[in-house]
This record gives sequence, C-alpha cells and structure tokens, in this order.
Amino acid sequence: MAKNITDPRDDFARWYQDVIREAELADSAPVRGCMIIRPYGYAIWENIQASLDARFKETGHRNAYFPLFIPESFIRKEAQHVEGFAPELAIVTHGGGKELEEPLVVRPTSETIINHMFSRWINSYRDLPMLLNQWANVVRWEMRPRAFLRTTEFLWQEGHTAHATEEEAREETLRMLRIYADFAENVAAIPVIPGKKTEREKFAGAVDSYTIEAMMGNGWALQSGTSHYLGTNFARVFETTFLDSGNEQQYVHQTSWGVSTRLVGGVIMVHGDGNGLRLPPRLAPVQVVIIPIARDESSRARVLEAASALRESLKIRGVRTELDDSEGSSPGYKFNYWEVRGVPLRLEIGPRDLEEGQVTASPRNDPGREGKFSIPLASLPEDVPGILDRIQSEMLLEARRHMEENTHTVDTLAEFSESIAERPGFYSVWWDGGPEEEEELQRETKATVRCIPLDQPEGTGRCIMTGRKTGTRVILARAY
Amino acid sequence: MAKNITDPRDDFARWYQDVIREAELADSAPVRGCMIIRPYGYAIWENIQASLDARFKETGHRNAYFPLFIPESFIRKEAQHVEGFAPELAIVTHGGGKELEEPLVVRPTSETIINHMFSRWINSYRDLPMLLNQWANVVRWEMRPRAFLRTTEFLWQEGHTAHATEEEAREETLRMLRIYADFAENVAAIPVIPGKKTEREKFAGAVDSYTIEAMMGNGWALQSGTSHYLGTNFARVFETTFLDSGNEQQYVHQTSWGVSTRLVGGVIMVHGDGNGLRLPPRLAPVQVVIIPIARDESSRARVLEAASALRESLKIRGVRTELDDSEGSSPGYKFNYWEVRGVPLRLEIGPRDLEEGQVTASPRNDPGREGKFSIPLASLPEDVPGILDRIQSEMLLEARRHMEENTHTVDTLAEFSESIAERPGFYSVWWDGGPEEEEELQRETKATVRCIPLDQPEGTGRCIMTGRKTGTRVILARAY
Repeated sequence: MAKNITDPRDDFARWYQDVIREAELADSAPVRGCMIIRPYGYAIWENIQASLDARFKETGHRNAYFPLFIPESFIRKEAQHVEGFAPELAIVTHGGGKELEEPLVVRPTSETIINHMFSRWINSYRDLPMLLNQWANVVRWEMRPRAFLRTTEFLWQEGHTAHATEEEAREETLRMLRIYADFAENVAAIPVIPGKKTEREKFAGAVDSYTIEAMMGNGWALQSGTSHYLGTNFARVFETTFLDSGNEQQYVHQTSWGVSTRLVGGVIMVHGDGNGLRLPPRLAPVQVVIIPIARDESSRARVLEAASALRESLKIRGVRTELDDSEGSSPGYKFNYWEVRGVPLRLEIGPRDLEEGQVTASPRNDPGREGKFSIPLASLPEDVPGILDRIQSEMLLEARRHMEENTHTVDTLAEFSESIAERPGFYSVWWDGGPEEEEELQRETKATVRCIPLDQPEGTGRCIMTGRKTGTRVILARAY
Repeated sequence: MAKNITDPRDDFARWYQDVIREAELADSAPVRGCMIIRPYGYAIWENIQASLDARFKETGHRNAYFPLFIPESFIRKEAQHVEGFAPELAIVTHGGGKELEEPLVVRPTSETIINHMFSRWINSYRDLPMLLNQWANVVRWEMRPRAFLRTTEFLWQEGHTAHATEEEAREETLRMLRIYADFAENVAAIPVIPGKKTEREKFAGAVDSYTIEAMMGNGWALQSGTSHYLGTNFARVFETTFLDSGNEQQYVHQTSWGVSTRLVGGVIMVHGDGNGLRLPPRLAPVQVVIIPIARDESSRARVLEAASALRESLKIRGVRTELDDSEGSSPGYKFNYWEVRGVPLRLEIGPRDLEEGQVTASPRNDPGREGKFSIPLASLPEDVPGILDRIQSEMLLEARRHMEENTHTVDTLAEFSESIAERPGFYSVWWDGGPEEEEELQRETKATVRCIPLDQPEGTGRCIMTGRKTGTRVILARAY
C-alpha cells in the first residue's frame, strides 16, 4: 500500500478520496458541493471527450451551444420534468444590479431550451433528423456531494435529437447506448451491462430510459451513461412539430443522452488499487514514464541522453510519454509518484541497462518484481504500442473477471438480503415489481433495480418481491 | 449581393445580423442577452479552440476546471475588481429549494476563485511557475447585446499563471499576447496591432493590460484578445505566497489572459462580404465543397462517382470536404448556399469537366467568372492544400491592406474629429492624456484609445488633447 492511501478493503470511500487527493485529480471548492478538476483529472476528461466526440461526429451529430440560463417557466412546462428537477435547481434572481422579472434557472439539463429552439428550426421532414450534442456544465443542487460522482456542478455532454418517427428515435436511443458501451469497454476498459431503467428510475420526462451499469471495485454499481427515448413528451408542450411528406403536422420524436465527469470517478473505482490510480492506456494522459537511474555523475549524462532519445522516438509514434529527469528526488520517490498517478507503463533506464542495450519495463497493472521485464532498446519504439494494447486488454479482462465473480443469481428476497449484506455485487433476479416494490426493496436492502438487461435469458421464474411468474430478470445492486 | 443580406456599405450592423442568420451561425435565446451558437458557428469556435489549445500546451500550460459559482465575498476582496464587475454580475440566491446563506456569483472571470486555490496548492518556489488554463462559460450582464460580440453568457478560455518574479510574469504576459497575435494573423487571417491598454481601459485588478486590436470591415476596432500582468494584486488579498529559495515568504506574481467567442464575430466582420461569410481555410469547418453538376440521368451516376472519389482523396489528405449531392436543388442554389457559409473553395464537376479530366474551381475570395480556374483531376488532391494556403495568404493580405488603407495619422483633435466621422478607421496620434482626456475624447468623438502599440515610432510630438510634448503614439478608433 502506498503511504497516505487507505487500503480499499478497509474503507473504500476513504480510499477513493485518498486517491483523488494523492493523484491530484480534484479538490473541493469553497462553495459546498462544487469541485475543482485539477489538471491531471481534467486531462483524463479531455481524453474521454476526444474519444466520445469522434464517435458522435462519425454518427452524424454536430456540436452546438445552448444558454446556461433557462426561464423558470420553461422548466415548469413538462409535468414530470419539473417534478424531477425542481428540488435540485439553482435560481438566479438578480442580474446586472436588478431583481429579474422572471427568475432564471441554471440549467440542470437542456431539453426545454433545446425544444424551444427546435420548434424554431424544424419546419418540415426535410429538417429531420436533427442530431445535436453539446459539451457543457450543468447544475443540480447536491446535498451529499462526492468528488466526480455527485457534485452540484458537473461537466457532461448532452445529445439531443429529433426524428420523424418513433422507430427512428428508438433506433437512435439504442445506437447511442451502444456507443457508450463500446467506449466504456474499449477505451475505459470498464465492462458494462446495458439495460433499460424501470419506471421509478427513468429520466424525468422520458418514455424509456436506458443505461450502462458498471461495477466498482467494492461491488457497488455506477450508472455510467444514459440514453432516453423522450417520445413526444417535450414536443407536445413546446409545439415542436414538422410537416410530414403527406403535408400533415406531426410532433417530432426525440432522444437525449449523456455521460459526465462521473465517468472519471468510475475509472478510479474500477481500476484503482492500494497504490493509487491505475489508468487504461487509451485514457491515460501519460501512457509511458521514463525514469533515468544514474548513481553517479559520470553515467548521468549518458543515461539522460538515451532517455531523451527514447522519449522522442515514442512521441513520434504518438505515445504520450514523460521523462522524469527532475533532480533531487530518488528513483523510489519517482516510482511511487507515477504509480499513484496510474501511468500504465514505467521504463527504467540505468547504466547497466544501457550496456546491455535494454530498459526495464514495469507495467502498472502487474507491479513489483514479478511484473518486470526487459525490452531491447533497438525494438522498443515498435514494441511499446503493443505492450500498451496488452495492458489495455488485461485491464478490461481483470475488470470483467471482477464483475463476473461478483455477479450472483438469487431466487428469494431473503437470500438476496442476506447475500448482498455480505457480498456486495450485482444480483440477477426474476422481477415483476413496480415502483412500490422497488421502494420496499431499497428500504430493506439499500439496493435498487439497476436495469433490466437488454440481454435476457430464456425461461421464467417467480418475482422475488411479488412472487408472480415473470420472464424478466433485472440486476439489483447498491449504487452510487 | 445575396438575397436576404443587406449591403454592408449601406448598413454594417444589419449586414452582420443578416450574415449570422443566413449562415446559421447563431440564434437569439429566450433569455435576453443570451445566444445559441448553432452547429456551423460552433464548428468555427471548435477550430479556434483546437488551434489555441495546441499553442497553450506547447508552451507548458495545462487545462483545469474551476467552479461556475463564486462566493460573493470573494469578488469583493480586490477593490478594483469588484468595482469593475459588480454592475455586470448574475446572482444565485436560491439553491436546492432554499435561500442561500451567502449569495453566489456566476463567474464573470475566475481570478478570485483561482487565487483561492493557488493559495492552497502553492507552497514553495518549486511549485512555480503554475501555468493553468480553462475553457469555460462566463456571465457578464449585458444591456446592449450583440451576437458573438457582447452577450450575457459567452464562451472563452482564461489562462491563469503564477510566477516567482515580476520579470517572469511580465514575460508570460507578453508571450501569451504574441501567441494570440500569431493565431489571429496565421489562422484567422486577421492582422492585429498588439499594444498596451491605458489606465482607463485596463482589466479591473490588473497592473498592466495588453490587447490585440483588429480592424473590422467598417473601420471599427475589435479588442480580440487580452493578456494581463496582475502583479501581486490578487496574491495580496488571497494570501497567495510561496517560500522562496532563501526561505522567505513572497507573494506570487500573476498573469491572466483570454480570448472568447467574440473572435467568431471578428472573423465575420473582417472577412465577410455582400454575399455572406468568408472563412479563412485554417478556420473553416468545410474547406472544400464539391458540387456535382449533371443535367441528365445518364451522366449523373458518372459525375457522382467521380465526385465521391474526389471527396475521399481530399479527406485522406486531411482536407475538410463536403460533397453536396442533395437532390431537388439547382447548382445555383447550392453555389449560393455554400457561398453564404463562406466555404473557401468550391469545386464544380460536370460531364464535360469529366471528359476533359478536370474540375472547375471557384475560390470564395475571388468570386464570379474572373476567379474561376481549372484543376486537372489527376493532380487535384495534391494541388488543393496549396490552393487553400494561397487563399489563406490572400485573405490575410486583403485584410492587412484594408487596415493599412484605413489607418491614418492626424495631429490635432479637430482634424481627428472631422476625419473619423467621415472615414472610420484607426488613427495614430501623439498622446499624453489621462482618464479625463479619454472620457472627453469619447464624449466628443465616440472614439476611444484602443492601445499604445508595442511598436512605437521615433521622435516626439504634441498630445492631441493636452498639447504636451510626448514620445508616445496611440491608436484611436470607434470600437465594439
């Protein structure tokens, strides 16, 4: 275990805070519930953004920017929407030295303002589909803040699309869910369960909400991305209509979908260990750190020269590489510094390595003596990308194994209640309950229905709450 | 002139709004003073961001994110700062259903909150320099809004740095000013005059403010980027100190610098013409548009096939290319559509072009028959990048010529007053006045001192306001 970092097995919540502090990912703000994303944490978010943004654009979406302030009356238009968001709103009452005639809401999400604009921009079926996204900050007042996971202000992207038919909008909803799942698994190395939310858990204003649920290191679930089919709910109250090809006015069918900086929290909690952060190479701001080790002045110049050459040869290949040639700190200190920050691959180079024409490689996901191996200097620039790919795959496999080992099937509430208290994880159960049963379940076990997985098994069984026969299985878990 | 676009010589302000509407750059929001940046306008901003962000990172800056909400008491700490910003603040008084104990300010700029954090992060000279930047939205209540130029909410970047010495901080201030000037000239094709702001025009809280001033199509000035040396003004009130190498507590010396979405307004007003927008290739979301022209079905397939192949060959070379193969609209309609949107290069390809193994190229900056030329299909993918570079240079030259032709030297207030009324532009004058003379000047002529150019001529002359002898020349102009 690293100094200053609690053992995650002893206290996962405290471990999480320790990692955030020691890896300099974030800091708390003077305003309760807000956070500062420090450069290293923000660089992870930038990599998440770049990766998702490319996927959005490949699928025909364009970025735009809508205002931070929304007239309070807009939020009140859609009944479920206002019910869901009213308790979390921040309200601007004064501007430019005067009290405002109508208070402004700091956007908690932008469906209302975007529908207002869609009504202006969409006239005929030729204007459809309209596929927009925005990267923005949003505010939802948070009483129990937790860095990255729950903060009053957070950064996210929100996609908003309008379509001519329900079928197209539903396709879009699932397309974006698949994009999130693909990103989570192949970039963040986080296996997820894509599924549908229950009525109780769905987005305020949606017809159907979909989610990707990931398992954290402690067996809890993190809702890591959501995609909503909004039907014509917002279109009806904002009069977002179009003239179809038969010259009839129709309401548009809409979707919205988003992921946020909480994904950074997910990366920490899926991959981190007792020594700090562990970053999958595709998200890591620094993929390779080179530590020169020279015990005397005579070898120092030679070692540094070789290390610099190495850095350049890796940078040319697009590998994000740092050379830690800072003076006054020992190799051990540097090892720890970059280990805490989760850099996937460390290369140590000393005089003896140089003589033998090699470096010593230490992958973050297999630390200590056992994981170390040598790479010949001659082939190193070509070898490193492959090694990073291997680390990426290993981290996904490890996370998947963790999820599988902590996913259980139970048949009764008693069994579930007892089991989850001892072994937090995902529990697959037959389910036929409604919002009341969900509340009861949560009261008794603190668990919630995370999702109805898209991938459903054959057969039927009895709902653990109602005892009724059902063909539907859901995932239960404790969740952030 | 394009339909729906006012002649800029008749009414520049209305022309500006027409271009924004017709090119679908932005739209007004339901909240007064706010705007929606539409996808095409936002894509220009994304290119500005990418280009500047790379320059910031190359010079060692890292991005971070600080909160939107700042305690009101923070803003009040620095006397000049609060005086400058108080009238423009938006205030959150309610959050999470309750009245807040201390109202929160929606950030108009982040010096105060960042200093609060710097005090926590900076301990010793080893922590310096601290070089941060953030891309964010800010709010300054605006009574006379104008799309991109003055809006209550706008997007910007704000760099914030802390240094051990005044010398280093002053170097940084000018380094960032040079980066802005380099970006303006070499990416946005906007020539600028870098200079220092007068006491009256400087940033609220700065010791010295620097600016790049650009001339718009109507001869008015647009402050297009600013860089401030803050001295120890914020450090003193936020106790941002460090232990120097001699073990003494010292205040850090700071800088801040920013550019905003108003740059998009600058691009419109420097380059646009009676037919709409004109975009310099390095900023253009679409650099090349291919218009297939087929008068009958038999040639249509062949032309489309060639056009698609062309698009692919350009995309592979990194040229941002669109193929407008939409049906149901005439080539003339398409020409106009892309012309209004300022796409730098249009390629027309028809059956006869195909037979002759060429396309007809029409650069946006030399429209009509005279500007057209042929490019052999065989060499087109290699030729286009060079053609775009040429257009980029031509646009800069044209803007520079416009600025030079509209920059005048005058020696007396009477001469200036008469001249600027007839010929808006930049006026170089001897200057030795203070804030009072600046106010008088503005009252009488509506012009302000835009900057004291870094590049000063030899010699001396008499100040046009005070009549005193001085070695300083300033630029006067009407400004946005």
